[in-house]
Amino acid sequence: MINTREDVTQMIVAAKVAKGIQWKDVANEIGLSKEWTTAACLGQMTFNKQQAEVIGNLFDLPDEAVAWLQISPYKGSLSTAIPTDPLIYRWYEVVNVFGTTIKELIHEEFGDGIMSAIDFSMDIQREEDPKGDRVNVVLSGKFLPYKSY
Amino acid sequence: MINTREDVTQMIVAAKVAKGIQWKDVANEIGLSKEWTTAACLGQMTFNKQQAEVIGNLFDLPDEAVAWLQISPYKGSLSTAIPTDPLIYRWYEVVNVFGTTIKELIHEEFGDGIMSAIDFSMDIQREEDPKGDRVNVVLSGKFLPYKSY
Amino acid sequence: MINTREDVTQMIVAAKVAKGIQWKDVANEIGLSKEWTTAACLGQMTFNKQQAEVIGNLFDLPDEAVAWLQISPYKGSLSTAIPTDPLIYRWYEVVNVFGTTIKELIHEEFGDGIMSAIDFSMDIQREEDPKGDRVNVVLSGKFLPYKSY
Amino acid sequence: MINTREDVTQMIVAAKVAKGIQWKDVANEIGLSKEWTTAACLGQMTFNKQQAEVIGNLFDLPDEAVAWLQISPYKGSLSTAIPTDPLIYRWYEVVNVFGTTIKELIHEEFGDGIMSAIDFSMDIQREEDPKGDRVNVVLSGKFLPYKSY
Amino acid sequence: MINTREDVTQMIVAAKVAKGIQWKDVANEIGLSKEWTTAACLGQMTFNKQQAEVIGNLFDLPDEAVAWLQISPYKGSLSTAIPTDPLIYRWYEVVNVFGTTIKELIHEEFGDGIMSAIDFSMDIQREEDPKGDRVNVVLSGKFLPYKSY
Amino acid sequence: MINTREDVTQMIVAAKVAKGIQWKDVANEIGLSKEWTTAACLGQMTFNKQQAEVIGNLFDLPDEAVAWLQISPYKGSLSTAIPTDPLIYRWYEVVNVFGTTIKELIHEEFGDGIMSAIDFSMDIQREEDPKGDRVNVVLSGKFLPYKSY
Amino acid sequence: MINTREDVTQMIVAAKVAKGIQWKDVANEIGLSKEWTTAACLGQMTFNKQQAEVIGNLFDLPDEAVAWLQISPYKGSLSTAIPTDPLIYRWYEVVNVFGTTIKELIHEEFGDGIMSAIDFSMDIQREEDPKGDRVNVVLSGKFLPYKSY
Amino acid sequence: MINTREDVTQMIVAAKVAKGIQWKDVANEIGLSKEWTTAACLGQMTFNKQQAEVIGNLFDLPDEAVAWLQISPYKGSLSTAIPTDPLIYRWYEVVNVFGTTIKELIHEEFGDGIMSAIDFSMDIQREEDPKGDRVNVVLSGKFLPYKSY
Amino acid sequence: MINTREDVTQMIVAAKVAKGIQWKDVANEIGLSKEWTTAACLGQMTFNKQQAEVIGNLFDLPDEAVAWLQISPYKGSLSTAIPTDPLIYRWYEVVNVFGTTIKELIHEEFGDGIMSAIDFSMDIQREEDPKGDRVNVVLSGKFLPYKSY
Amino acid sequence: MINTREDVTQMIVAAKVAKGIQWKDVANEIGLSKEWTTAACLGQMTFNKQQAEVIGNLFDLPDEAVAWLQISPYKGSLSTAIPTDPLIYRWYEVVNVFGTTIKELIHEEFGDGIMSAIDFSMDIQREEDPKGDRVNVVLSGKFLPYKSY
Repeated sequence: MINTREDVTQMIVAAKVAKGIQWKDVANEIGLSKEWTTAACLGQMTFNKQQAEVIGNLFDLPDEAVAWLQISPYKGSLSTAIPTDPLIYRWYEVVNVFGTTIKELIHEEFGDGIMSAIDFSMDIQREEDPKGDRVNVVLSGKFLPYKSY
Repeated sequence: MINTREDVTQMIVAAKVAKGIQWKDVANEIGLSKEWTTAACLGQMTFNKQQAEVIGNLFDLPDEAVAWLQISPYKGSLSTAIPTDPLIYRWYEVVNVFGTTIKELIHEEFGDGIMSAIDFSMDIQREEDPKGDRVNVVLSGKFLPYKSY
Repeated sequence: MINTREDVTQMIVAAKVAKGIQWKDVANEIGLSKEWTTAACLGQMTFNKQQAEVIGNLFDLPDEAVAWLQISPYKGSLSTAIPTDPLIYRWYEVVNVFGTTIKELIHEEFGDGIMSAIDFSMDIQREEDPKGDRVNVVLSGKFLPYKSY
Repeated sequence: MINTREDVTQMIVAAKVAKGIQWKDVANEIGLSKEWTTAACLGQMTFNKQQAEVIGNLFDLPDEAVAWLQISPYKGSLSTAIPTDPLIYRWYEVVNVFGTTIKELIHEEFGDGIMSAIDFSMDIQREEDPKGDRVNVVLSGKFLPYKSY
Repeated sequence: MINTREDVTQMIVAAKVAKGIQWKDVANEIGLSKEWTTAACLGQMTFNKQQAEVIGNLFDLPDEAVAWLQISPYKGSLSTAIPTDPLIYRWYEVVNVFGTTIKELIHEEFGDGIMSAIDFSMDIQREEDPKGDRVNVVLSGKFLPYKSY
Repeated sequence: MINTREDVTQMIVAAKVAKGIQWKDVANEIGLSKEWTTAACLGQMTFNKQQAEVIGNLFDLPDEAVAWLQISPYKGSLSTAIPTDPLIYRWYEVVNVFGTTIKELIHEEFGDGIMSAIDFSMDIQREEDPKGDRVNVVLSGKFLPYKSY
Repeated sequence: MINTREDVTQMIVAAKVAKGIQWKDVANEIGLSKEWTTAACLGQMTFNKQQAEVIGNLFDLPDEAVAWLQISPYKGSLSTAIPTDPLIYRWYEVVNVFGTTIKELIHEEFGDGIMSAIDFSMDIQREEDPKGDRVNVVLSGKFLPYKSY
Repeated sequence: MINTREDVTQMIVAAKVAKGIQWKDVANEIGLSKEWTTAACLGQMTFNKQQAEVIGNLFDLPDEAVAWLQISPYKGSLSTAIPTDPLIYRWYEVVNVFGTTIKELIHEEFGDGIMSAIDFSMDIQREEDPKGDRVNVVLSGKFLPYKSY
Repeated sequence: MINTREDVTQMIVAAKVAKGIQWKDVANEIGLSKEWTTAACLGQMTFNKQQAEVIGNLFDLPDEAVAWLQISPYKGSLSTAIPTDPLIYRWYEVVNVFGTTIKELIHEEFGDGIMSAIDFSMDIQREEDPKGDRVNVVLSGKFLPYKSY
Repeated sequence: MINTREDVTQMIVAAKVAKGIQWKDVANEIGLSKEWTTAACLGQMTFNKQQAEVIGNLFDLPDEAVAWLQISPYKGSLSTAIPTDPLIYRWYEVVNVFGTTIKELIHEEFGDGIMSAIDFSMDIQREEDPKGDRVNVVLSGKFLPYKSY
């Protein structure tokens, strides 16, 4: 029985390993970016009915799982406050080491406010480089100003 | 007396507030990006002798502080493991919500390894948008593969 | 010497105790709500130049402090992740006990997304009640939807 | 076998997903607010016998579950002290950033004491707004003064 | 300079050690219980003007400190979430070991709700006993029921 | 299979819900206070053989469970260091806010030492009050002095 | 000015380093064991008037410090819940690795209860051994049984 | 199926409760101290083949479990960093309150180094005492000096 | 069903215990070092297809498990931030006690940067020594410099 | 005034920055390895009288500081349980990712026991490599077996 969205995420990941499916192919099937699609498959975003059915077919999910995919999930994909996986930790390290820098430069350009993590998109690409290829990530978030009232 | 690099950081920040200096102007003075320069002023990077002296002049620092700027600092700019400031927290949220997505997509493209946080650069720009301007951030890090031995 | 915005907050609070000033009178002086004004005096919001000078006069602050009031502060007003003060704890308890309820009902009405804590206002009023007066708080935040891309 | 109230909560949530029930319809069935009803279904409040039976019918629960619904539950709906879900986190952020402000203004109006989280109600509504609809939340809690003795 | 109520608490405690004053004598001076008086002197309760002046005289406090005594303090008297001092730890242990017992028995007698920690009093007495004297503590708190709405 | 005392506690609680048994009736059956009996049923105290058999009959426990009831359990009834349930939290709050007060007054009366949490008893009663009934709790613990050697 | 017992502890430790005093000599001066005496000097026990004066003379303490030595201190000598110092960590490790063993064997011999940490003494001796001398520690604590009531 | 040594520990403890075996009798069977034997049965030490078979017979363990008993286990017997069980907590309290004392006295006698927790033994005995029997524990650990190199 | 790489790790470890296989023999079978091979079997590294099949044969794993061995795992092999097992804790202690030393000496030799934990290898050998054999570990990691940009 | 060994460490580090001294030169002056010398200067090891005087001369320390250098310090050089500095974090990551591997291989070679962190030495060297120089670290620790008794 399916009790939580996490159960559905485990079913998707297990099917992906067994069938050898690629995330970019899943993205093509539902016609959206690989970043949003992967996040949604990993239980962080909400599919609409049509998308959920495509996902259900691709990963052979039962109807109950397809229903869960359309429910806004409890988000948060890490099991500890500080990630232990080296790839994810490096991102946490960037926030830790450069956090105050990011804050200063956004405030200098925009004033007091934040960069939205909701009206937000991300694009991850390989950048070829003779000294070793690089991971190139573009983050784009709407600036939301604090207002006085 | 100066006991730690943090003492120097506080002197720089206090002088910046008092004199109304902008980070981008500091960057121009030492001829490097505003991102690296700000991080270094905030105690996360090491200046060379010439750069340290420029910084010393700009912020009226004593010689002792200029010497500290040339020492590799103990890094980490946040006072709690989970940041309380909303602007910085949104970045932590991105790592928390999209961490496994980032991991999956980098592994799909590159295999097992990480995106370096050392051979790494960042560029923060305003992106004009009629629905509200956006913060556009490009992160570039060398891919480092795990090897077997 | 002033090293952080917290130093300014302590100066304001100490002056407020010594002079017996009320927050609502401070709010009247700068022509904004008592909620925003108090948050700003307690180091959570950024004053513009004119407002900062009014605050400086009211609390007899030095020029350096007035400059700090115009800098976007590192936000977060509590010294522990779970507040120990009973009044503030009750609010944390509301988030803990009703957090999933709030989430369900906002998603039921609006779909996946959040209630902004930036494009946000708060109004605190006394509600007279023969069984004991009540604290009435209205929170208003823009709904921000997650979008696929 | 049902060992805890959480088991009942999972049964309700799974049935809700499978049947596509809305919380406001559940509230109508038992004749109370959607806020209290949802909190109770999510394991934070105690139903009386009649209400529990209505809930049991709506969600096809076994008798054992209906008995559990009438037992005062161990409350607390979050799995971590600081919530990871962005919607719920924003509420935690409000407590963190505005906590001292709320404290100051309630004390200024009422003296020393707290706003009750027990003799408490909440009302969540959509507020239409041309710049984007808003979530409007009214919290009402009895003021409880500290007394000397 | 006095920046926080804690500064005043330290002044009171230091003066108490130096002058050899007893808490019960302080209580007699202001005509209230030794429990409330001690809590207030230790920075957990708010004195009115007359009481604050008595305290000021007893402990030779400056006017500024007397003003602070009349401000509702940020409460919480322990420096760690789990107390290290054995006497205080034993109380934490009682909550830890008997917490669910207390919860069950109050609910059995009163239904769902809490025992108030605000409309609350405490009385600590010596109980003579040939097998070793006992500490006898009476806690009295108003029962506050959860209501549906 | 029963692996821990907690398994037995869950069996008792589930049977209690199903059969609608009251703790005070359980206490009558074994001829001890409702406080000790409830704590023991909730896995915090050790029953002797005769008591364990009475409990086994009342809750229809298997022989294996009756054997576990006679083993000194690993104590501690809360799942987090700071309790999330509001009723139990209020007790934690009392320790947090009044902890240093309790310490001062016991030391003033008895000298250095502690109030035992082992040679300890508790009595919870309803106190009728026209302004709202109160929960009255008497805690009695032997004073144990530190000795020099 | 002396604000806390910790200030007195620091004065004693600094004087001890400067004068090269040994703890066993301090113990001889006040006629008690080196274990109790050291604990008391390090701020964990309460001296009586006569003992405090001896300590005051030995370490050249001001009268105010001698008064503090006679006040029951807030106990706990470690700055983190898990000690970082290797010598002290080994003791924590013993509790962690052998904790359940100690519990089982004391219960097997004595029944349910605890070994007191108040009616408690400790004796630390060198045990000569050709394979390397050993530290021999004898801990003696009164057994305190839980009783039913 | 047995996945971890903990599974074996649970099998031993459950069998011990069901059969009413005493740890000292187990120790006699394998001819070692009750302290080492109990620690090993509780998953903290490694049995050799012969010992493991004796344990297997005593507790009716399957062959797979007997194989696990001969594997060096991941050690640590407590489920929280600070133990909640009162008996074990008292030992933690001793480390917390007397930790710096133990450190000072071992260094005074032996110089810089530690008392080994590996080349270590423990002996727990009842000490009869007319004022109440005592638990007497002797800890013996080799002193290991830090050396310069 | 296999849901995570940890499930595969448990299958490998259980099979290893049952069959009495040695890690060095596994390493020989796949022709790599015992350090990398063990880490990979314990779920920290990614096998290629051929290696995974060898592992599958050695430990009698189902096809599904062999597929999982070829997926980059979520890394991190410890269940707590500070390890409880004494052998692993000693390594944590080395980082804690010598961390700043390692940092200073690498910076003195190489300038600002890090020693890679990705382009990294480890070799563990027995070093015979008449005073007791030693564990000799060689760690080799590429130096990665921070660059300005 | 010097209250703790940390005060001395700060004096040494500040003098080192001001004078531009290298750790390897300090090591030469006292005739020991750069690893031990640096650790001792950073407050983790104990100098003998002669060494302490050399250090005192090199860094112009007052006599009081030279006395402190000869006292066994409270060890632990990091301010958080998980280090934030990237260089030191990589070492923590090695323990986290390879901890169970190290444990398995040492047990496979030596049986149950630990690698000592006391009878321990470390050697850090540059290893030239055309693909980028490497940091080469040799750790050597005596194997200490657990014994039964």
